[in-house]
Amino acid sequence: MYYIGVDIGGTNISAGAVNREGELLFKKSVKTGRERAYSEVLTDIVEIIKQVQNEACIVLGDGFEHAAQSVGLGCPGSCNKSTGVVEFSGNLNWHNVPLAEDVQKGTGLPAFLENDANAAAYGEFIAGAAKGLNSAVVITLGTGVGAGIIINGKVFCGENFAGGEIGHNVISVDGPACTCGRSGCFEVFSSATGLIRMTAQAMEKNPESAMHAITQELGKISARTAFIAARQGDAAGKKVVDDYIKYLACGITNVINTFQPDCLCIGGGVCNEGDYLLVPLRGLVAKEIYTRNSEKNTEILICKLGNDAGIIGAALANVQLTINI
Amino acid sequence: MYYIGVDIGGTNISAGAVNREGELLFKKSVKTGRERAYSEVLTDIVEIIKQVQNEACIVLGDGFEHAAQSVGLGCPGSCNKSTGVVEFSGNLNWHNVPLAEDVQKGTGLPAFLENDANAAAYGEFIAGAAKGLNSAVVITLGTGVGAGIIINGKVFCGENFAGGEIGHNVISVDGPACTCGRSGCFEVFSSATGLIRMTAQAMEKNPESAMHAITQELGKISARTAFIAARQGDAAGKKVVDDYIKYLACGITNVINTFQPDCLCIGGGVCNEGDYLLVPLRGLVAKEIYTRNSEKNTEILICKLGNDAGIIGAALANVQLTINI
Repeated sequence: MYYIGVDIGGTNISAGAVNREGELLFKKSVKTGRERAYSEVLTDIVEIIKQVQNEACIVLGDGFEHAAQSVGLGCPGSCNKSTGVVEFSGNLNWHNVPLAEDVQKGTGLPAFLENDANAAAYGEFIAGAAKGLNSAVVITLGTGVGAGIIINGKVFCGENFAGGEIGHNVISVDGPACTCGRSGCFEVFSSATGLIRMTAQAMEKNPESAMHAITQELGKISARTAFIAARQGDAAGKKVVDDYIKYLACGITNVINTFQPDCLCIGGGVCNEGDYLLVPLRGLVAKEIYTRNSEKNTEILICKLGNDAGIIGAALANVQLTINI
Repeated sequence: MYYIGVDIGGTNISAGAVNREGELLFKKSVKTGRERAYSEVLTDIVEIIKQVQNEACIVLGDGFEHAAQSVGLGCPGSCNKSTGVVEFSGNLNWHNVPLAEDVQKGTGLPAFLENDANAAAYGEFIAGAAKGLNSAVVITLGTGVGAGIIINGKVFCGENFAGGEIGHNVISVDGPACTCGRSGCFEVFSSATGLIRMTAQAMEKNPESAMHAITQELGKISARTAFIAARQGDAAGKKVVDDYIKYLACGITNVINTFQPDCLCIGGGVCNEGDYLLVPLRGLVAKEIYTRNSEKNTEILICKLGNDAGIIGAALANVQLTINI
């Protein structure tokens, strides 16, 4: 018995077989080709699901106990879990496509839809950093700031399936413009994009900074530039890192004050900075949270599953539903 | 059959009998005398509960069907719902007092504890502005900004019963200091206290403003001052009101992006400004929310029950528990 998870990204479609415990047994990947029509991408999604089924027969044996139970689809954008319709995905240029129904028709398997950030959060919850807990908020610091929220073991998504967009909560009224139309969003400061912007600004102001040489070496200004400089003792680099951590702590404290989850997991490339990021971050949050004197407080952890979280979470996020049907 | 709700405030203890539908049948009130020891305040809480029981016999008839089923206690501070212990209440100067257990002993009734803001939110949810819906966030704009969050018909309070402290979420990093130790919290701008501070600052800068004469008339700078001036066409007063609504819209948009509830209810004195507040507020939020193009969005409403919400909500917030026991 296994569950198929599909993580539909702007670049790749990844699919895999996941057991009930959230272990990813194997995975496959194909280019999304998002410039193509929905029907063509759908054909590839159905095809990769069939490939997973075929491979499962080879890898796991083809007895009844190895049959796929369901398919979970993690997709960027507004995903209506009730209808299985992707109402809008800017990333894929999809408008009101009945993805779950189409996949169900194409594969003969019960299919469920989940927003991709929610799916990834559920993956970390069921099999990663938050395994064994009751609630978690998972924040991904990438091009933007994505988030998924798990309350009492279930994905929380509000009444219109769009809840948890904490990356677009303002932490600095009248701050720099965000892609969402607001100003000073958490995402503006705490995404990798935001870190790169702040690094570029600091480099312009500080021609003597080690960040210039580092940029030449890396070939571009990256989210690592300021961290490398700071570790070398560069004052301007250190200031960028301190500011970045200050804003990140501000946004994370807001999330903890709001949800008081068992843990808050952060993922994305910047987490490779490890304790250099995590130790001061935890220190600032501990000082700022409303419950700083409570016995029980949210643990801040680093995500463990990387890109596999999306496949695992998509596979299992709606398994209760499957079993009830 | 009825349920007793007790709203324990810094000034008054109010208690009443509530039916299953959330109708407050009658209420009583006594001064809290919060400078006294816990044991003395407890004696008064037990006494007012007994008074409610006695009055119920007179008002409702003393048959079995009129017996009190349980007591719900709404209390400011950190309230552990599982143990019934008030872990900390700065307002009442209580530390780790076993309130529910003590009330149960004193009255013979099953007693349940709830944070007072959560209780008030549940009151609005079960019998007020949010009646009949599935989820709601209730925000009270008073001395501070209090909030209660209802998800799937239940009070949401996180893993340590302290969730939903959205008044202490920063919306302006490095903004004015908040009582909680952070800077630029939602509460700093959107509480009545914040409005009064912004009014006083504007008055200092604008000696010609109508706000000075209004203040003389009212006897003090109040949360109404700037609104009265703005309605008279005073530019400085209008600017204060515009700024106040801008910050309030910012904080409310954050809450909607996060929870996407069926409705967001606002309460507190400033809501008496009615459409003068509500129309521009709704306009700004509609422009700012992440789901501005969605078919289903959160309704912004004014609370209906005033102070009764706390009694009604305390009475019923944990009634499921009562029935299961």
